[in-house]
Amino acid sequence: MNINKKCLNFLRAMSCEMITNANSGHPGVALGATEIMYALFKDHYFYDVKDHKFFPRDRFILSCGHASSLYYATAYMFNFGLGEDDLKSFRQLNSKTPGHPEYNTTNFVEVSTGPLGQGVANAVGMAIAETMVASRFNAQKYPVVDNYTYCLCGDGCLMEGVAQEAISLAGTLKLNKLILLYDCNKMTIDGNLNISNTENPVKKFKSMNWNVIVCKNGNNYYCVTRAIAKAKKSNKKPTVIIFKTTIGLNSKLAGSNLIHGNPLTLTDLDELKEKLNVTDPFKLPEDIKNHVIKTNERNNRLIEKWNNNFAVYQKAYPELYKKLASFMDNKPININHLLKQEQIDKEDYAMRDANHIILKELSSKMPRLVGGCADVALTTKAYIEDGGDFSCENRRGKNIHYGVREHSMGAICNGITLYLQSPSFCSTFLAFSNYMLSPIRMSAQMNIPSMFMFSHDNFRVGQDGPTHQCVEQLGELRLIPNLYVYRPCNMTELLACYDNALSNQSPSCFILSKEILKNQNNNFNDAKFGGYIISGDYGEVEILATGSEVELAQNVKSILEGQDIKVVVASFPCLEIFENQTEKYKNDILSRANFRVSLEASNDNIWEKYIGNNGLKFSIENFGKSAKQNDLEQYFKFIPSEIAKAIKKTVKK
Amino acid sequence: MNINKKCLNFLRAMSCEMITNANSGHPGVALGATEIMYALFKDHYFYDVKDHKFFPRDRFILSCGHASSLYYATAYMFNFGLGEDDLKSFRQLNSKTPGHPEYNTTNFVEVSTGPLGQGVANAVGMAIAETMVASRFNAQKYPVVDNYTYCLCGDGCLMEGVAQEAISLAGTLKLNKLILLYDCNKMTIDGNLNISNTENPVKKFKSMNWNVIVCKNGNNYYCVTRAIAKAKKSNKKPTVIIFKTTIGLNSKLAGSNLIHGNPLTLTDLDELKEKLNVTDPFKLPEDIKNHVIKTNERNNRLIEKWNNNFAVYQKAYPELYKKLASFMDNKPININHLLKQEQIDKEDYAMRDANHIILKELSSKMPRLVGGCADVALTTKAYIEDGGDFSCENRRGKNIHYGVREHSMGAICNGITLYLQSPSFCSTFLAFSNYMLSPIRMSAQMNIPSMFMFSHDNFRVGQDGPTHQCVEQLGELRLIPNLYVYRPCNMTELLACYDNALSNQSPSCFILSKEILKNQNNNFNDAKFGGYIISGDYGEVEILATGSEVELAQNVKSILEGQDIKVVVASFPCLEIFENQTEKYKNDILSRANFRVSLEASNDNIWEKYIGNNGLKFSIENFGKSAKQNDLEQYFKFIPSEIAKAIKKTVKK
Repeated sequence: MNINKKCLNFLRAMSCEMITNANSGHPGVALGATEIMYALFKDHYFYDVKDHKFFPRDRFILSCGHASSLYYATAYMFNFGLGEDDLKSFRQLNSKTPGHPEYNTTNFVEVSTGPLGQGVANAVGMAIAETMVASRFNAQKYPVVDNYTYCLCGDGCLMEGVAQEAISLAGTLKLNKLILLYDCNKMTIDGNLNISNTENPVKKFKSMNWNVIVCKNGNNYYCVTRAIAKAKKSNKKPTVIIFKTTIGLNSKLAGSNLIHGNPLTLTDLDELKEKLNVTDPFKLPEDIKNHVIKTNERNNRLIEKWNNNFAVYQKAYPELYKKLASFMDNKPININHLLKQEQIDKEDYAMRDANHIILKELSSKMPRLVGGCADVALTTKAYIEDGGDFSCENRRGKNIHYGVREHSMGAICNGITLYLQSPSFCSTFLAFSNYMLSPIRMSAQMNIPSMFMFSHDNFRVGQDGPTHQCVEQLGELRLIPNLYVYRPCNMTELLACYDNALSNQSPSCFILSKEILKNQNNNFNDAKFGGYIISGDYGEVEILATGSEVELAQNVKSILEGQDIKVVVASFPCLEIFENQTEKYKNDILSRANFRVSLEASNDNIWEKYIGNNGLKFSIENFGKSAKQNDLEQYFKFIPSEIAKAIKKTVKK
Repeated sequence: MNINKKCLNFLRAMSCEMITNANSGHPGVALGATEIMYALFKDHYFYDVKDHKFFPRDRFILSCGHASSLYYATAYMFNFGLGEDDLKSFRQLNSKTPGHPEYNTTNFVEVSTGPLGQGVANAVGMAIAETMVASRFNAQKYPVVDNYTYCLCGDGCLMEGVAQEAISLAGTLKLNKLILLYDCNKMTIDGNLNISNTENPVKKFKSMNWNVIVCKNGNNYYCVTRAIAKAKKSNKKPTVIIFKTTIGLNSKLAGSNLIHGNPLTLTDLDELKEKLNVTDPFKLPEDIKNHVIKTNERNNRLIEKWNNNFAVYQKAYPELYKKLASFMDNKPININHLLKQEQIDKEDYAMRDANHIILKELSSKMPRLVGGCADVALTTKAYIEDGGDFSCENRRGKNIHYGVREHSMGAICNGITLYLQSPSFCSTFLAFSNYMLSPIRMSAQMNIPSMFMFSHDNFRVGQDGPTHQCVEQLGELRLIPNLYVYRPCNMTELLACYDNALSNQSPSCFILSKEILKNQNNNFNDAKFGGYIISGDYGEVEILATGSEVELAQNVKSILEGQDIKVVVASFPCLEIFENQTEKYKNDILSRANFRVSLEASNDNIWEKYIGNNGLKFSIENFGKSAKQNDLEQYFKFIPSEIAKAIKKTVKK
């Protein structure tokens, strides 16, 4: 038997063995996309199996994360470091082979996938980042990076809006090193693709400025590998290869939707193995080992060549090399001294403006800092001044115009963060965080330092009305495990938030007021605790507030103190940081008065535990109205006099 | 001056006057899409201004909700019931003319819009619903409904994934009565469209099986109205008309992105009005009044004709008419008697299976009940058995195959619910509710009875891993104001949840276990309180649980009672209903023991207030793992013995 055929048979048998062992998994794509994965990893994928972080490597994203068994089987075959035990523990607790690929769990996995479509957008982000590095540092004949970004996706991924948004942007940005491997089996879980989707993918991709290659026999290794070779030559456009494949090939249910997520029975598995002439799928015969080693050797030669080239580059382009070294450097940034004191002391800022100033300063210290907006850069102001606009003509631009595509923006941002191994940011109004919860969650799950920046964070945005006024968004974000949600009340707090985000390299949301906030008398080191006393010491009443409401709390304090009620105000720029403090510290901050009040323009339930059973909660429990800011403040009773009155009434009881 | 031109001048002046008055709004589209709105409402839109609920009316959706001033101006001109005062109170508190159109606030507004792209999907939903009614009840020569669904959108809407998903589905479903009016001004907030989007919309729409009409002069009334007339003739495909327009036409900033959201200064407004020859924009001259009245008269004739036809229809097709009457009937459904007692008493159900049974029974009593899934009908089981599949061949099918398009599914579902004025449902896994938070929020904001059904609601889904295991989703949904989130523990509770959803016609989420839950001994009337004592009376410990954890709580109870600790279990199928009860009732339910414990496989903070400062919270605070259900139960310590041990330890302190 032809050795390629034999390898393919083993990959199929291996995948299905893993799935049946686990009694869980997706044989459909594992049997259908086998040639795509094999051809890619055998003939094209540039990778150092000894150094998974080797920077110039190609990137591979399995957008159809449920094809994990095939991915692991391929990685096993090509010596990526998985062992037989890993295959045997597929989908078991703490294994390196979880149900969907997990970044940080399996060392060659570039990004966690699972929710369909995300991976396509992640790939666009990685391809964007590649052009950023290449344009800055590649010298003639000495490309520092020249990698491809490959993404395997299926019919399901491509129905998702997040993927469609990213595809449209990729065409606009002419990301010619991006290659989308479309496993087109025309089957979805609920049946034939035609029941929900009859579009013409060739024409659709072309309309979005993609290079389209159709591979009519996606289950023929030779056709597949030739198609990939051709795709790599695209010099102006991203490429999609539409591989016509058969779902569940070689199984009894080949061509049927029923094979998608149902493990083969033991009998069917035996039958399949017999058909494929594989007895023990996890034991690769010597001829296969000898065959795949050639791929490793080819890559080793390429790596050696790259290393040699890079040594020459260092000497030939010392300035560029110095810049590159500084670009890749992860030296800590002293946020406390980022700004001049007068910038911090300047009377009042809207938090979006404060953020704008910080981004500009940070950009000079963090050369990898790039970001973008979903068509609201002029209003969120999360834009790097003098950073230039990223485009197909200007790959060095630091500001990406994502268009009105919030969902893919979040996922692309994750891709950039992953490629650059450094925080990148993206931005829109807080109300529209609803469009991008999935990528935010993914960043938290992967624990990568994407920075999601949201302005227009409360009802005071006013006249645009309830669709633009946040109620639940703050609480929703705070519920995402592992995510830091920052809502600063002034420049000092915002700096402290950045300090945490950058020193921990943690996923973060910056919640930034649109409206100007009165400056507060606080200091950086206090703010770094996430929650601290910003005014007063001990009193009858303690007001816990965040962001825009800190000013409000101070005004309430003034009124109450005029009525001989002593008030302490605690500010909480970040509840997650506060929660990380010692019990002693937390108890101290939360025990400055017997009566505690929370004050936040959201309906987050988290405050209940801080104010206790007898506390008072000032919150926004209902949708807003289209009205002027001050009318809304009256409507919601978010005005100092009303709040002071309510507090006094309760205290006096 | 030509009277049409004069009308257009007034619309422009009126819109800008409103915006400058309010010092807030979007003149760009108001000046650019004027001809589109005017031609539509003057020549095509079939509507009864005296009866906003007249069923056979055309539907209009302003997907670019920020064009509201133009919408109100047009509605004012065509006598939809707005007065001069309404225009003068544009964007003011409690006015009929809020910043973005609001359903339930303004009687001719068919759906609230604002978050871009949603409206396109809402329109697809309405067009789907129209075919459903037409196919069931239209008789030859006597169409009960034959309306068009018009949707105005801009470049922004069409970049959104939610719109692209819906467009793809609309092409598949051949919704030929759907007409998308694309105000193509090639400008977005941050600049020229080209910076973020260079796709070819003609080719793109065609690739998705749309009829495409290009109107090169979208600011020429005659061209515009001819294009719409042509679109109405499409008999196999939905139509997009690409109107090339100039943003901010007639203003100083015409053609610039800066006109998008910046009110004209008083000087610029005066200049504009002079240019347009309009002195007092809100006072329509007699010739305009006489001109537009012809449109009202034309519609009155059509309405009369429809009424006459309908009278004939009633006689000619008495059976059909009877069916129609029953179809449109809103008679309450006795949920308590929907099922046979043995179906309720049947030992154990997974909640998705219980729901499947209910849907089948409901379908026979609620002829308008339709719904669909995002390609997981086989697993969420939110599928009407024997209801047939909706398709371009079978408009009577009750089950819609949405494809893997969760976001648009939610928005389309809202459109169907609005058109049919009856609950429709949609379904996917709870983890993917993250993709569709915006339409869920919109349903809550509009207070319409869309039913979002989510199975696979907790970590026990197991081996698919953390991307598929919910942590924060339950809490996120519960934070949305006005939304009822149901998490029943057995068939009885599920029925009680339906009873609330259908009798209140409230927006709802049904959270349904994938796994089989042991049946409980409870009754419908108790469950209707949203929270109630399901076992025990008074004790040392009260466990508050929902859904899958009620069974767990009962098992904990057994263990503790074996150790002489008396336990009460309270079940909370719906916290929102529980919150609506009297304080007395709530206090009674929450005071059956001095020590309260919450038990839910989520990290919702809402439990803090129920268990109080000294309570114990068993929750899932971190992302899951890919592992078998029982391994995960161990991993999260969600097993009776561990929980009992922890409770005992605390109680004994």
